[in-house]
Amino acid sequence: MQYLPGSIKDLINHFTKLPGIGPKSAGRLTYYLLTKPDHDVDDFGKALINLKKKLQYCHNCHNYAEEKICRICANPKRNPAIICVVEQPLDVVAIEKTNYNGLYHVLHGVLTPIEGIGPEHLTLENLRQRVNNQPVEELIIATNPNLEGEATAIYIQNMFKNNDLKITRLAQGLPIGTDLEYADEITLSKAFEGRK
Amino acid sequence: MQYLPGSIKDLINHFTKLPGIGPKSAGRLTYYLLTKPDHDVDDFGKALINLKKKLQYCHNCHNYAEEKICRICANPKRNPAIICVVEQPLDVVAIEKTNYNGLYHVLHGVLTPIEGIGPEHLTLENLRQRVNNQPVEELIIATNPNLEGEATAIYIQNMFKNNDLKITRLAQGLPIGTDLEYADEITLSKAFEGRK
Repeated sequence: MQYLPGSIKDLINHFTKLPGIGPKSAGRLTYYLLTKPDHDVDDFGKALINLKKKLQYCHNCHNYAEEKICRICANPKRNPAIICVVEQPLDVVAIEKTNYNGLYHVLHGVLTPIEGIGPEHLTLENLRQRVNNQPVEELIIATNPNLEGEATAIYIQNMFKNNDLKITRLAQGLPIGTDLEYADEITLSKAFEGRK
Repeated sequence: MQYLPGSIKDLINHFTKLPGIGPKSAGRLTYYLLTKPDHDVDDFGKALINLKKKLQYCHNCHNYAEEKICRICANPKRNPAIICVVEQPLDVVAIEKTNYNGLYHVLHGVLTPIEGIGPEHLTLENLRQRVNNQPVEELIIATNPNLEGEATAIYIQNMFKNNDLKITRLAQGLPIGTDLEYADEITLSKAFEGRK
């Protein structure tokens, strides 16, 4: 690498830090950009520098927003009686591809005692305030189907056990398009439990 | 996508333009960067903006360089008697991973008559001058093993047919680590022709 011009080496290093991009892809992306017009590459650079400049957390759901209240929370066509609780902002992107029409609450993590992440590190207090002060009828807990996600879901269920609130969990079962024979035994057991 | 903050949408769009990165990966990369410290993201942006600022083509081999003469051409430990002719700067990156110790000549393309790319669009005249004015003993033509690459290789061979110059072509045959049964018939024929 020492034969490479500094600016090329520098950009390859930055690309290599991204998840799923190895040194070879990083080189290919950098040399691809070298063939593009200057203003395209400049705009890309500016997009990175401006990425976080105007961003804040929505005061209601804690997703990324450019205003105090994000576009989903501010949208009068969304149903404020349903809140879908997710771990990360990227989960909102995934769920927005379905026809879900309620609001969200972004926890920014899950309970992970071995890493010292307790309830106070998540936006759980804000969730409690929303449930108490807003006309919420249902919480859909959409944490990931793994140990930490399950533990967090149970914690939230306990938080609101005295509230008159419907609390649901995303269904677990067979993903669409797979073969039964490839499903692992836990998924298959969950699919039996959840049969309807 | 209209619910996304402008700066997030903007960066996703830029990532999506890169080869091999679809909208889903672009989203993942953007949200990954949102979790990183501001100065890391800023540095990445600056690396893009500075990418081409100081770059020029090496006056000798036409690879990217920060000075008039690139680090490979300027390196006294390299053998100037051998020139490896490649299509693109990225080919140099690939070959530098081998123990090749000669110099390069970057054509910046291949002869492609149907797209109107003729000899005058490549750095062929510069190659002729190098061969005439420098102590070159061997040209290794490392254009890609496809129609245009082959045509360009033959064109270069003809250019220097009156010079006292060894002209070689990279060997074609079976790639290491594959199974014979998966090789296509042209590769297999070339492997027979080139047996030694």
